[in-house]
This record gives sequence, structure tokens and C-alpha cells, in this order.
Amino acid sequence: MSASPLSDADIGRLKVNQKRLMEDLHHTCTWGTGKKWGRQAIFTGMTRLALSDDDKRARDWFVQTTRNLGCDVTVDSMGNTFAVRPGRRDGPPTCAGSHLDTQPTGGRYDGILGIHAGVEMLKVFEDNHVQTEYPVGVVNWTNEEGARFPISMVSSGVWAGEIPIERAHNLQEVGGGTATMKSELERIGYLGSVPASYQSIPIAAHFELHIEQGPILEAERRKIGVVKGVQAYRWYTIDVTGRDAHTGTTPFSSRADALLLAARLITRSHDVAVKHSALGSTGILTLSPGSVNTIPGHVRFSLDIRAPADSTVETVEAELKNAFASLASQNSKLSVEWQTDTTSPAVNFHPDCIAAVRASAESVTGSADLVRDMVSGAGHDSVYTSRRCPTSMIFVPCRNGVSHNPEEYTSPEDCAIGAEVLMQSVLRYDRLRAERASA
Amino acid sequence: MSASPLSDADIGRLKVNQKRLMEDLHHTCTWGTGKKWGRQAIFTGMTRLALSDDDKRARDWFVQTTRNLGCDVTVDSMGNTFAVRPGRRDGPPTCAGSHLDTQPTGGRYDGILGIHAGVEMLKVFEDNHVQTEYPVGVVNWTNEEGARFPISMVSSGVWAGEIPIERAHNLQEVGGGTATMKSELERIGYLGSVPASYQSIPIAAHFELHIEQGPILEAERRKIGVVKGVQAYRWYTIDVTGRDAHTGTTPFSSRADALLLAARLITRSHDVAVKHSALGSTGILTLSPGSVNTIPGHVRFSLDIRAPADSTVETVEAELKNAFASLASQNSKLSVEWQTDTTSPAVNFHPDCIAAVRASAESVTGSADLVRDMVSGAGHDSVYTSRRCPTSMIFVPCRNGVSHNPEEYTSPEDCAIGAEVLMQSVLRYDRLRAERASA
Repeated sequence: MSASPLSDADIGRLKVNQKRLMEDLHHTCTWGTGKKWGRQAIFTGMTRLALSDDDKRARDWFVQTTRNLGCDVTVDSMGNTFAVRPGRRDGPPTCAGSHLDTQPTGGRYDGILGIHAGVEMLKVFEDNHVQTEYPVGVVNWTNEEGARFPISMVSSGVWAGEIPIERAHNLQEVGGGTATMKSELERIGYLGSVPASYQSIPIAAHFELHIEQGPILEAERRKIGVVKGVQAYRWYTIDVTGRDAHTGTTPFSSRADALLLAARLITRSHDVAVKHSALGSTGILTLSPGSVNTIPGHVRFSLDIRAPADSTVETVEAELKNAFASLASQNSKLSVEWQTDTTSPAVNFHPDCIAAVRASAESVTGSADLVRDMVSGAGHDSVYTSRRCPTSMIFVPCRNGVSHNPEEYTSPEDCAIGAEVLMQSVLRYDRLRAERASA
Repeated sequence: MSASPLSDADIGRLKVNQKRLMEDLHHTCTWGTGKKWGRQAIFTGMTRLALSDDDKRARDWFVQTTRNLGCDVTVDSMGNTFAVRPGRRDGPPTCAGSHLDTQPTGGRYDGILGIHAGVEMLKVFEDNHVQTEYPVGVVNWTNEEGARFPISMVSSGVWAGEIPIERAHNLQEVGGGTATMKSELERIGYLGSVPASYQSIPIAAHFELHIEQGPILEAERRKIGVVKGVQAYRWYTIDVTGRDAHTGTTPFSSRADALLLAARLITRSHDVAVKHSALGSTGILTLSPGSVNTIPGHVRFSLDIRAPADSTVETVEAELKNAFASLASQNSKLSVEWQTDTTSPAVNFHPDCIAAVRASAESVTGSADLVRDMVSGAGHDSVYTSRRCPTSMIFVPCRNGVSHNPEEYTSPEDCAIGAEVLMQSVLRYDRLRAERASA
């Protein structure tokens, strides 16, 4: 390849090896194989909790493989592992990153695909003797799922300076065990001496390939989602208080039916969310006393409001607070109380990274119609990296939008398309850095 | 008093001793006293489960007191206890009946008032040397609440030939104990040798004084409900099946939200019940998987439909089945299934008994405005007696419509008014029997 920054044509000639990508992915999925759901050997889920023995095996593979590809590997104090391939000049690496840990009943693609696409990128660079302007790398972030140690994205959070290291190290495993993140990092040999910090281990940019975990790309028959950010969300607990009463002896006029009101509130929350193109969802509802012939005097339910913009979430919240109060006020014996449990502001990814992903997606798929802009509905390590370096994400379709489930599935073709977009994005961003340095 | 059937004026001169009635009631409530809710010593609930030691003490008091008042006492094979005071001629007794057992966290009036009003009636008769045309009696039915042995009204059900004695005897106490109804009847000495049967122990008529357990009399400032029957009801379990999905990544168009549909169904069931002057209530709702950020794929809820006429319940059911199917059909991934758990037809009490209660209520209160016809929303032993003898019930107000709760409360004045209506109803019915015999 040419020694000066790669042209679009140069970039376009670099091809991901789909067969190798999938063989590598399914090879590491022999560590922590989960529930079988179909006839083929690879049709299983994954059970690879963070810092388990199986996670150690996958990590060891990652370290060994990237070293063999000429990378320097750094493990930080959260076990985050940075494999960096030198470039023409020094500087922080442009990275592909994701995670190798899974949910207890997870699948083979969430996180894992992002790491393997990064490793495949390194292999393509080696095969083709690609010399990047700056270093490029692949990062495996620890415990993204928050399934074993109960904070999601905890280690990218520490790296970004948003979560104190002590809090992260002291996290105890769920399910009553006594292991902590620190004790498990030590046990499997991944407690690095370099502080987990964007100051100690700076990154120039972060690109993350991930399955969509939703149905939009599949439904619209598109191949790539250019992720412009992560939507804002707020979680609330709503308490509806009425009065227990006998279903047979209490006329409607004398009731204070907490469940009937809750049903109206849930329906209304949906209607208001639709009106503002937001999302509103209730996943938990409990009531008391819970007897066929007793009108519930108390109902508690969760409310999850999401939208691309913080202001939309605020508008929906304000409108619902009014609507709920108004519906409750129709009966003086009924009352509604709100508690805000979580406030997660909207994240806007960096325009340079978004542009690199969009150009790469159109180049790889050959058609802007197969690409759409998206906002991520779920959190990812890229949320934390975006606070410290330019970041964007790349979504590929997953069957029926299913994830966190053994049947999570993305076709080999779509995995390869996503990996190629990731590789091109890293190269385009690397070129941009060089152009800006020489401008 | 006159030796021939009593005139209305004779009947009107017989007065319940309110002080004695309440003292007796609160005396027996020292056996099984429950949670204290107010300053006065009598402001407590009751915890007197059927066939417990406390229930035995109350039963012993009942047997001893009624024997001292000149009654023959018969205990049947379900522990039902019939105290019968001889009349001018032989024949089955005209009875007042109710129950001495309570809910685990019950009150002092549900059931207990009905028994004590019957005993007070016997005392008034003794004080005033009343000779009835036929025998009159008081019945204590066993385990009406179904709280300890889990069939409500089980012993009047056996008496009526509607529940097999073996099934009743073999009922095990709830909560994991090994005691059965039969073993507990034996243990406390109330397993009588006479079969529990309307054929072995016939009753001429059954009147039951009971607290309303609802708010209507209190709200309308009336003193007596003339109970014409018991409303029909049906209990259903409704299963709504959709699909679990991530609340953040699943647009509304791709969802199959079982809870949102359930909320609409519950609201609709209320609206359809209102339209038909029926009652519709949901007391139980469970969902899965139950996580803030997962749309529930399955919801199960109870539905309780009641109305005075069977045909109304059937109409509401049919209309709701159509409505539910129609609401579900808006999303092909959602489905609704019905299961009928209980069908309890409407009960119509006997016109002679209803007429006796109404005349007595207007006589005691002095105003038809203080009296209203009612349909009982809850089941009572009178449901079973009505299958084998003319029956009616008398309701008195209870504070806030609350029952099955320590704070259940009816004022002494209202207890005495109810007891006097009960006494007059028995006397009027007794006179009617004599008039018809001589006609």
C-alpha cells in the first residue's frame, strides 16, 4: 500500500475475511458456551460473566493474538486491555473497542462482535502491510454488562474518571458471593499496574461496532446504523395509593381502586410518549393486598421514559405529572407519588466520528439507502469514552431485535459488513488526524 | 303477652337491651382478641379462627347461655350448633343464624353480631315470657370465613347437601399444619353425632343479621338493608401474552407489550361493567420478566364480574370477550386467553322472609326512608340455607364499609336496631306460619 495517507480507493480495497472473523468469534465462544437453541454447533447462547475463568481464557486469547499481530498490550487497574499497533508516528491510538463479557443468558454477538471485528481489522492490516498514520488499537472493556458486578460499563466509567476506582474495585459479585472486582482481577491475573484513566492511557477516538439490540434495521432492511448518540432516559417509581375494599360489596362510587388508576396512568404514559416521539414503558408492577375479591389499595409501578433529546424527556415527564395528578384528582381518596430513580442525559457522539462511520457505511454497502442514522436506546462503553475522546458507534441488524438472550443472532454477512465499516472508520479517522496535523 | 299470635303492637313493644347485647358481644370477644386500633378497650380486631381454642370458648359460652335460656342444643357432624327454644306447637324452628369464627385479622361484628343478636332475641323472649307459635332458634355455622379451612360457608354447605361431608372433614388447615376439620372438631369436642343435613335438622326459615361490609347504607344514612338476594359473580384468570423486549431499543411499532394491553383491558372491563350497572374488578396482577428496562412479555390478571342477575354477568362477559379480542387483534404478536375459575349464580331470597324483614325494618326505624332493598355482594351461610328453606338477611351499616379488618365497626345503636329487626322478623315469620296453618 502507499506510504502516504490512504485514499478512499485504498481503503475500499481492504476487505474483511468473513470466514476468519466468524471462525475466530466462534472459537472464543467455546469459552462460556451457553444454552443451545438450534441445530448447528454455533447455535448456542453465552454465559461468560466478567472475570470468570472463561472470561480469562477469552482475554488470554485476545492478548496472545494481538501480541502476535505486533501490538503492545496494556492492562490497566480495571483489567481494561488496550492492544495498540504502532503507526507512522507517535500519539494516542484510534481505537475499536467493546467487551468480551456477556449476560448470564446472553448471546454470541453483544460486545463479542465488536472485539472480534477489531482483531480482524488488525489481521487485515498485517496481511496488507497497512501502515496507519497514528497508532490504532483494540480495547476490551471489563464488565460492560454489569451482570456479575452490578454497575454497567463500570470500567470505561473508571477510565473516563466518572466512577471512583475504589467503588469499582469493591463491587461485590451478585448472588451472595464474596468475590469483589479487585479480588477477581487479581485471581485471574488482570489487575494491571497502570491506572485505569484517560490521563494514563489516552485514546484519540473510539469506534464501537455493536448489534442494534432492536428491530429497526432488520425491519427497514438496512445494513448499517450510524449511531449519532445515545438517547436520554429517566426511570421513575410511581406509587398509587387508594383503599382496599371488597369487590362484591363496594360500588364504583365508593371505590379508590389503585389498579384501575394505574391502568389509566400506564395507558396515558404510552399516549403521551407517542405524541412526543419518545418511548414510555412500564416493566415492573406490584400491588397489594393481591386477592381476587379485594380491590388493590396500593400499586407501585416503574416508568421508563426515553427520547433522543433531554428536553423531550423533560417535556414528557412534565406532561405526565400533570396528567397523572389530574386523573388521580377525579377521586379524593386516590393519590399518586413520583420518585425519580435514574437520570441519564442524552449523549451526542462526535461529528468527526459520525462522518467517518457514515462515509465508511456508504462505501462498504454501496448505497446510502442501506444506511440510516440512529440513536442508541441502550448504554454502551462508548457513552463513557465519548466524555474523553471523539466517539461513535456502528450498529448491525440482529434477528427480531433480540439480545440478552441465547437466540441473539446476526448473520455472518452482516457481521462482516459491520467489521469492514469499523475498519474503514478507523482508517478514515486516522487519515483525518494526519490531514489536520499537516494543515 | 297474649297467648294467640302476637299483634304488630305486641311485637313493637318488645325491645332489645342494647347494653346487654353489646356487653355480651364484647364479653365473647375476649376470646380471640386481635389488634388494637383505638383507645377504648373494645377497639380491637378479632383473631378467632374456626375450631381454635378461642372458638371453642365462644362456642361453649353459646351452648351454656342458650341452654340456660331454655333451649335444646344440637351439635351436628360439622359442629354447626342449633339452639332451639320450644314454641306452642312442634315443628322445625324459625332460626336466626350466623357465625362466631373470624378472619385472621378480622373484626368484632362480621358474623359475631348475628349470633349475639339471636341470643339477645332469646333473652328478650325469656324476659317477656314470649311464647312463639313454633320453635325458634339460633344457629352458629362452623368455619363460615373459610380462613382456616379453605372453603367458605363450608358447614352450611354440607347441611344444605351441596358439599360432601368427607370433603369438608378432610379439609386441612391452611399454613402447612396437619389438622383437618374433623380432627379439630374432635379435639375441641364439637364433632356431633347428628348428620349435618337439612334432612336430619330441618329449619323452617333462616334470618341472618350481618354488617353490610360495604359503604352504601352509611353513605345514604340508612339504618337497615333488606337483603333480597346475593348477586351473581364469576371469577376469571386472563392471560395476556406478548414478547419481552428492551424498553430502550424497541420502537412502539415493534412491541408486543402485554402490560400495556392488560392496562387497556382492565380499563375496558371497568367501562363495560359501569355501562351494565354491574361490578368489574381486578385484584391480582402478575407479570414477567419484571425488570425496569424490559417490556413484559406476559401478564396474568384476575377479573371478578358481579351483578344482581346472572344474565347481566353473562352479557358483561360476552361483551368483554369481544372487546378483549378486538383490542388484542390490533397487534398480531399479542394474544389474550380467558379461563373461568368460579361461577356463582345469583341467589334470590324468599319473598315471605323479605317481606318480614321489610315490615320489621320499617317498624323498628319508624321510616321507610331509613330502609332500602339491597343485594348482598358477598357470600354468607344464608346462600346455602336459601336452597333448603325460606331465607333473607338484614344488613346494618358499618363504618366506611370496612370489614375483614380490625377496624371494622358498627355503632351500638345500629347493632341494637339490627337485632330488633332480626327479632321482629323471626316473630313475624312465626306468625305467618301459624296463620297459614290455620287458614
